[in-house]
Amino acid sequence: MPHATRRAALRATLRETGLDALLVTNLLNVRYLTGFTGSNGAVLVAAESDDRSVFCTDGRYTEQSAQQVPDLERVIDRPCDVVLARWAVKDGAGRVGFESGHVTVDGLDLLVEAVGGGELVRAPGVVEGLRVVKDDAEVEALRMACAAADRALAGLIEHGGLRVGRTEKEIARELENRMLDHGAAGPSFDSIVAAGAHSAVPHHRPTDAVVRAGDFVKLDFGALVDGYHSDMTRTLVVGQAADWQRDLYELVAAAQAAGRAVLAPGTPIAEVDRASREVIEEAGYGAQFPHGLGHGVGLEIHEAPALSKAGAGTLLPGMAVTVEPGVYLAGKGGVRIEDTLVVRQGAPELLTLTTKELVVV
Amino acid sequence: MPHATRRAALRATLRETGLDALLVTNLLNVRYLTGFTGSNGAVLVAAESDDRSVFCTDGRYTEQSAQQVPDLERVIDRPCDVVLARWAVKDGAGRVGFESGHVTVDGLDLLVEAVGGGELVRAPGVVEGLRVVKDDAEVEALRMACAAADRALAGLIEHGGLRVGRTEKEIARELENRMLDHGAAGPSFDSIVAAGAHSAVPHHRPTDAVVRAGDFVKLDFGALVDGYHSDMTRTLVVGQAADWQRDLYELVAAAQAAGRAVLAPGTPIAEVDRASREVIEEAGYGAQFPHGLGHGVGLEIHEAPALSKAGAGTLLPGMAVTVEPGVYLAGKGGVRIEDTLVVRQGAPELLTLTTKELVVV
Repeated sequence: MPHATRRAALRATLRETGLDALLVTNLLNVRYLTGFTGSNGAVLVAAESDDRSVFCTDGRYTEQSAQQVPDLERVIDRPCDVVLARWAVKDGAGRVGFESGHVTVDGLDLLVEAVGGGELVRAPGVVEGLRVVKDDAEVEALRMACAAADRALAGLIEHGGLRVGRTEKEIARELENRMLDHGAAGPSFDSIVAAGAHSAVPHHRPTDAVVRAGDFVKLDFGALVDGYHSDMTRTLVVGQAADWQRDLYELVAAAQAAGRAVLAPGTPIAEVDRASREVIEEAGYGAQFPHGLGHGVGLEIHEAPALSKAGAGTLLPGMAVTVEPGVYLAGKGGVRIEDTLVVRQGAPELLTLTTKELVVV
Repeated sequence: MPHATRRAALRATLRETGLDALLVTNLLNVRYLTGFTGSNGAVLVAAESDDRSVFCTDGRYTEQSAQQVPDLERVIDRPCDVVLARWAVKDGAGRVGFESGHVTVDGLDLLVEAVGGGELVRAPGVVEGLRVVKDDAEVEALRMACAAADRALAGLIEHGGLRVGRTEKEIARELENRMLDHGAAGPSFDSIVAAGAHSAVPHHRPTDAVVRAGDFVKLDFGALVDGYHSDMTRTLVVGQAADWQRDLYELVAAAQAAGRAVLAPGTPIAEVDRASREVIEEAGYGAQFPHGLGHGVGLEIHEAPALSKAGAGTLLPGMAVTVEPGVYLAGKGGVRIEDTLVVRQGAPELLTLTTKELVVV
């Protein structure tokens, strides 16, 4: 049971920080610790033992929570945050941590009232700290999410979905429908399909603009599987590739490979960004790469660690991150190449398997 | 310009409550007041004049914000909440309100630091209070969102999309694709398609279960247009309707009509729920109607006012709400009928136009 294992890791952290319990109200953190996928729920994790931990949701989820959270005491009530805060005090918890990065100012008032004389302690980012390193179940969900995206893109290309005259919106929709065909619950974010000069806009939204012969088409998209988000960018050429397009593509591919090459446990996070960025800077395009190299992915599409110049800390085995350098020539076209990978001893595990050779369709 | 008009209404509220400015950080409230649709932004609305109000977003949205928010001073920086809090103090604001129902406990620390000796005042729900009554631009967006859903359902039925042997998931996907065809940016929430006994589960998620002859099929879905959410439920029969199905349908239709009949300015909100619910209770099915009658809709799929037994206050002209009674016979089948309507002097304006006669396909 990955959830029980995750709660055990959390309990160790709580004991280290002198908390008797943590009141977890952020829904993604609740899902991570319990497996619950409903829209209202909270869990009180007791430092001492899982027997004293308790999960809460409302009456809409009585049956669902019995299936998803069979291994914890369950309370059906609302509001769950207040109910569990009261529970903690009644159960004798002295110091109860709360997620101060998620609980609102007004929400804290209600908690303070609920605990009476009990002590509420700020505990920001505790569960997020655990989520940075993915366990096997999480990596498996990410693998499936990446596979759905890989297969969708392969199907799109194979069936002529990328062709002159098609709109960016039509392509985005076919890509998203194909991800659903391959088991995705949905896209993991608003797909980017950017043709021609639009490919030079880093976060272009699909329009009714049509693909023309010789266009770059940049596709940045992902699938959502079991709550986990994949993220991949490929840039293709439709028709025939010009020399400047091949050159630009080769440059970005080399930068992307340089970033992947240093993706190993112990590498300072800022160094990963630097390794990739200096390839682009040396070619004179530093100013045309205006964003960070990548980011963590998991239950959120953007989560820790941020792989940027300012990134602190070092890579750990099991971190799942994107590596996505880009060079954008305004009014002309741009290339971004992005993989989702897991940091491993030795080489990273590549989850997005679509070729990074320049594809001309 | 609806946004300038909304800010003027907010300024009047601020002056009444003695605030010099309101720091609006909730993105939906920012969108409501400025038209900005990006993923990071905030606006400081000055009580005195719009000339002293200022909008903030980060560098990704420089161009987009210039187009969407041409009528306010703009700052490109991050983090926007802190930047605008500092701005307020520099501009001489004494009492600066903040959205205490949205700002987190940790977030408030940063604001307190930013304002130095300035006074931060809790101001929960101020913009939400304005959003309860929809203006013409909002109703027009809701009309388009409801029309996309109406047309999608009509197309689904017309092209034989509801037929024996089809899975709930397939039907949901066709419905969602048809909404996109009719101008929706996406579904406004996870569509509910529930066949046979599944129709007795109020919030059933579509599965691979197939439609069988004689099944109820309950469809609860909506479209998202310009940020506004439509919401409609229809329950149909596939094949031939049994007597118990016709009886159940007539009961719910009568209850739904009773709720709509009292939807007028000045009606106590609890009374709307009661008027509909008593039709069902008198038929002996009170326990099989376990949810509230409806809810407000707008920039959120569920917003104020909640039309329930416990609802406080009275209806105002311009409120946009759903009316959606249901009766659910466990293991057998259920019926829910839901419209989105706008409260008007005299009869409400019906936005979801699909027939409420029992449709047998």
